[in-house]
Amino acid sequence: MAKSETSSAKASPEAMANAIRVLAMDGVEKANSGHPGMPMGMADVATVLFSKYMKFDASRPDWADRDRFILSAGHGSMLIYALLHLTGYKAATKDELSNFRQWGSKTAGHPEWGHMPGVETTTGPLGQGLANAVGFALAERHLAARFGEDLVDHRTWVIAGDGCLMEGVSQEAIALAGRYKLNRLTVLWDDNAITIDGAVSLSDATDQAGRFKAAGWAVKAVDGHDMKAISKAMAWATKQDKPTLIACRTKIGKGAATMEGSHKTHGAALGAAEIAATRLGMSWDHEPFDLPTEIETAWRKVGKRGGKARKAWEARLARSPHATEFTRAMRGDLPEGAFDGLNAKIAELIETKPAQATRQASGAALDQLFGAIPDMIGGSADLTGSNNTFVKDTPILDGPDYAGRYINYGIREFGMGTAMNGMALHGGVIPYGGTFMVFSDYSRPAIRMAALMGIRVIHVLTHDSIGLGEDGPTHQPIEHLAALRAIPNLLVFRPADTVEAMECWQLALEHRNTPSAMALSRQKTPAVRTEAGCENFSARGAYELKYLTEGEARVTLFASGTEVAIALAAAATLDAEGLPTRVISVPCFELFEQQDAAYQASILGRGTIRVAVEAAVKQGWERFIGEDGAFIGMSSFGASAPAEVLYREFGITAEAVVAAVKARV
Amino acid sequence: MAKSETSSAKASPEAMANAIRVLAMDGVEKANSGHPGMPMGMADVATVLFSKYMKFDASRPDWADRDRFILSAGHGSMLIYALLHLTGYKAATKDELSNFRQWGSKTAGHPEWGHMPGVETTTGPLGQGLANAVGFALAERHLAARFGEDLVDHRTWVIAGDGCLMEGVSQEAIALAGRYKLNRLTVLWDDNAITIDGAVSLSDATDQAGRFKAAGWAVKAVDGHDMKAISKAMAWATKQDKPTLIACRTKIGKGAATMEGSHKTHGAALGAAEIAATRLGMSWDHEPFDLPTEIETAWRKVGKRGGKARKAWEARLARSPHATEFTRAMRGDLPEGAFDGLNAKIAELIETKPAQATRQASGAALDQLFGAIPDMIGGSADLTGSNNTFVKDTPILDGPDYAGRYINYGIREFGMGTAMNGMALHGGVIPYGGTFMVFSDYSRPAIRMAALMGIRVIHVLTHDSIGLGEDGPTHQPIEHLAALRAIPNLLVFRPADTVEAMECWQLALEHRNTPSAMALSRQKTPAVRTEAGCENFSARGAYELKYLTEGEARVTLFASGTEVAIALAAAATLDAEGLPTRVISVPCFELFEQQDAAYQASILGRGTIRVAVEAAVKQGWERFIGEDGAFIGMSSFGASAPAEVLYREFGITAEAVVAAVKARV
Repeated sequence: MAKSETSSAKASPEAMANAIRVLAMDGVEKANSGHPGMPMGMADVATVLFSKYMKFDASRPDWADRDRFILSAGHGSMLIYALLHLTGYKAATKDELSNFRQWGSKTAGHPEWGHMPGVETTTGPLGQGLANAVGFALAERHLAARFGEDLVDHRTWVIAGDGCLMEGVSQEAIALAGRYKLNRLTVLWDDNAITIDGAVSLSDATDQAGRFKAAGWAVKAVDGHDMKAISKAMAWATKQDKPTLIACRTKIGKGAATMEGSHKTHGAALGAAEIAATRLGMSWDHEPFDLPTEIETAWRKVGKRGGKARKAWEARLARSPHATEFTRAMRGDLPEGAFDGLNAKIAELIETKPAQATRQASGAALDQLFGAIPDMIGGSADLTGSNNTFVKDTPILDGPDYAGRYINYGIREFGMGTAMNGMALHGGVIPYGGTFMVFSDYSRPAIRMAALMGIRVIHVLTHDSIGLGEDGPTHQPIEHLAALRAIPNLLVFRPADTVEAMECWQLALEHRNTPSAMALSRQKTPAVRTEAGCENFSARGAYELKYLTEGEARVTLFASGTEVAIALAAAATLDAEGLPTRVISVPCFELFEQQDAAYQASILGRGTIRVAVEAAVKQGWERFIGEDGAFIGMSSFGASAPAEVLYREFGITAEAVVAAVKARV
Repeated sequence: MAKSETSSAKASPEAMANAIRVLAMDGVEKANSGHPGMPMGMADVATVLFSKYMKFDASRPDWADRDRFILSAGHGSMLIYALLHLTGYKAATKDELSNFRQWGSKTAGHPEWGHMPGVETTTGPLGQGLANAVGFALAERHLAARFGEDLVDHRTWVIAGDGCLMEGVSQEAIALAGRYKLNRLTVLWDDNAITIDGAVSLSDATDQAGRFKAAGWAVKAVDGHDMKAISKAMAWATKQDKPTLIACRTKIGKGAATMEGSHKTHGAALGAAEIAATRLGMSWDHEPFDLPTEIETAWRKVGKRGGKARKAWEARLARSPHATEFTRAMRGDLPEGAFDGLNAKIAELIETKPAQATRQASGAALDQLFGAIPDMIGGSADLTGSNNTFVKDTPILDGPDYAGRYINYGIREFGMGTAMNGMALHGGVIPYGGTFMVFSDYSRPAIRMAALMGIRVIHVLTHDSIGLGEDGPTHQPIEHLAALRAIPNLLVFRPADTVEAMECWQLALEHRNTPSAMALSRQKTPAVRTEAGCENFSARGAYELKYLTEGEARVTLFASGTEVAIALAAAATLDAEGLPTRVISVPCFELFEQQDAAYQASILGRGTIRVAVEAAVKQGWERFIGEDGAFIGMSSFGASAPAEVLYREFGITAEAVVAAVKARV
């Protein structure tokens, strides 16, 4: 039983697929945790895909024109780790495989982007990988239109399970892909008729082929263990003018000696006895993680298949007039002078002091940025006019004309979020998309994944408080600021006026490893940044907007967004009544936490009377006001009425701030 | 132009529909805010439905066996307000209509359950009304099986728009309805080919008929302005053995003089000139909110159509052997002695002190409750074994046997949440459903709606921290406790052991106007409530679990769930080292906030050294520890490794708690 047995025998495709099965069994067994059933079931499909259709070069996982492979059914992570190991990705060592799911390994329980080269997106929360793939495929077509098919000409392949197809986001994704005729997208459905609780039929009777056809897809069904049929279907897929679904009828845990076809193979180690019997059945006489030489050789050859194409592409890139710009965009660098227009505009705004809604302010920022940064792609979940996300005269990204830079996502907030994640991961584009802030609840799982991966995706969330008025409590965010601020590695910006909105947009674009959420008002608010200064004060997260030029402050007021104006009005009253008051604008909690302790202390103003005002729940503001401070905001859901009535009825007024201060004198 | 013109002319159905159109225009115009396009477009469909098919009696909006009408496209709220007014619902007065969208009115911007009788569920966030309807239809079939069709025999009618059908949750809902063959559910799709941003075709090319058929629905398409065709389709719908979609091809803003068919009618007042011209075109010569007598008479007759059926039903109820039990269940009262078994078990647990995961503890609570409360209906989004939601030997609720009390929701967290909302709103059942806590992000929009409406829905959220281990950061909740606690009117329980789990279940069931989320561990944890006592301490939200019988505390430790054991271990060390320490268990922030100030102060222990420990983000704990306290928890996403390794590596240990205290001595 030694790895080094040499053999001149050529490895059969079946034996190559069995290598995936054995590695999956062994990895899960060693960890005593994981999901062997899916990798074993889809091993045949994956073997055909990688051996014959995927365009990739294992020695260059970052080749820009590679095909993307997305394991939407992320629990089957051993499938991708096995494939990367077998095809010779440097990082996917035997050690990594045998450290599956352990602290510090690259082989996390679910595939994590940024940990293991070859993993294109983090998957696990079902449906999202499939939905990311739509973003990959959109980005590919857009960049092909922008830079030419000489440089951009690749496919996106997805393995999805029943869970992915049951999740609602899959409908948003397939409808988008169908609408945009993303014909370089192929989904390989692991149609094993099994879920964790038992047969799929317990909870589902959907005719998936019919459903995908209705969404504008071409569909073929094959026996997922018939490699010739699989290959034929993949060849067919590459020739369609629409996205393609290949329904692969498989047996979960295929090859397992006694457990093949059972949901018991889904989420637990098979056990030593079953594994031994399975090895015997496969005539696999090797130690865990060891490979027969002929298998290893065959798979390594697969890993090198794309080398020639990759070199040819590099040569094309070298002589392309787009080389510099393409490389810059794919690296995620911003063009030089990206913010020149913005900064000039800020200087102007300090003078003109426009009173406008911060969603309009955001639109004004986009007016400055969109031309300067050709990588930006905007969009909205059917609220374009309300979100101020559309820059005048921008061509629409559409089926025939993928060069457009604005996407009509339809009423699909989650689908938009996942597509934006896919686009950002693909590279070459910087996506932003709008909806009402309250519907960040719909896109939240995508926002979380962006934060977890650390990718630059910008959510434009307008109508950010009861200030939206008559649409009422179903549309009024109350807890959303707190809920978004709770997500690690997400920048939540709530600018107070046009200048801050511009500063926040710059910060969002500069943070390449952090997604951002822009909380923007529906209602008008006055300019509050009216003094010239060359610093981006919003970068501090919280800063002294109104300060005392002499004497000591007795009061510190904290506020964000449209409530900064309320704090300023209260401060004017308090000053006049002999209570010297500072006002701290807090456009971004997270950036404030990154400041040094001395700066934080100077802002917090312990010893002064502290009051915070934000038209939202208190949670999180204790950081600023301590245990004895007052909070003026919301503690219930909102109501349906004009905005000014709501502010008055819910007591979010300068008078309430003043009263809270006086009660503490 | 007087209301009182008498006329012997019989109102035509077209004129009756125009009454809806005029009221919708007038309501929106008066408010200068709202959505006239949809009510005008669907007026014909609604007129046929209410005049001929809906079983209802306007004088008794609470008749248990009424058909349910759900306006999933909730922005068209003037449609339902107009219908309720026209048919004579007492609360839907002319004054209410003319106070549309104003403070204190029952005519909120989107229809709100509990404000206006006749509104069956709060809608607005698209897709959710349709998805609630699946819950209504499930509850109806279940109660019919339980109490007989003599008492329960009604339909659920939904008006849904393109937005509802684009949202992913619609797929989860229609797949569930198809799987469960909910043939008393009919969706009337307002197929007007228009969204806010313009034509539906901008963002969608779905063949909706094909899609619904693939989900197991029967489908018919009609001209939505041809009342005979509509009526025929509705008659057809009532005879199918599966759920039905009637695609009603309509013109948005139908009847508007110049704006008919334009997306401009969607979300804004039409303006005085357009309204005047439209009135002229309809020969509608009446003041705003005034009705011609013949129209009023005709509509009032419609409102009384169901009176006879209602009285017959009341007679059946009166002589039914199920009368008492049916009435109790529909009222939402718990059976007498519902908690006797639970309380006996608690007494036993104090003695046996079992160490087990709190998800198992929750399962043990269900073992006691499920038999005692026949209204409870369980389920899981395909994680039954992991969520411990299934009580042994429970029959499954299924197509042929709706009497079952456990629902296989499939991998559809949001669909489950919305269905549970619909069930709770229908009445007669108390739904609970399980998933992993991290996927509360998927069901979050439904949880919010339950909180906004104030309905008893219980979310069982297991695997509540990094303690879930190897599945890694995609599956580890970090921010979810904070994010859930941020939602107003939601009880978030995180019990520390089996006794607390039982107490929390009792509280969740007793709070009839509040949904609950149970945060439960995957991993084992010791019993911490080991002293007998007749009080439900969890009802206090936070309570002194380990107290000092003499002397003054120098340290107060706060913790929830599995971290309570860590706090107790730290306290033992601190006590031994001469730092007398209290431990506060905090199973529910929200209930703590409801306690009186003196109790809160006694718990908070200002002046002592305060440390909180929870394997989650800090946000919210400042309430307990103040500005100088320490927090031991998470500030980043988790990682993939065994649970005990993660607790050690992320520093959530008794040693870390002790060190934090000592640093503050």
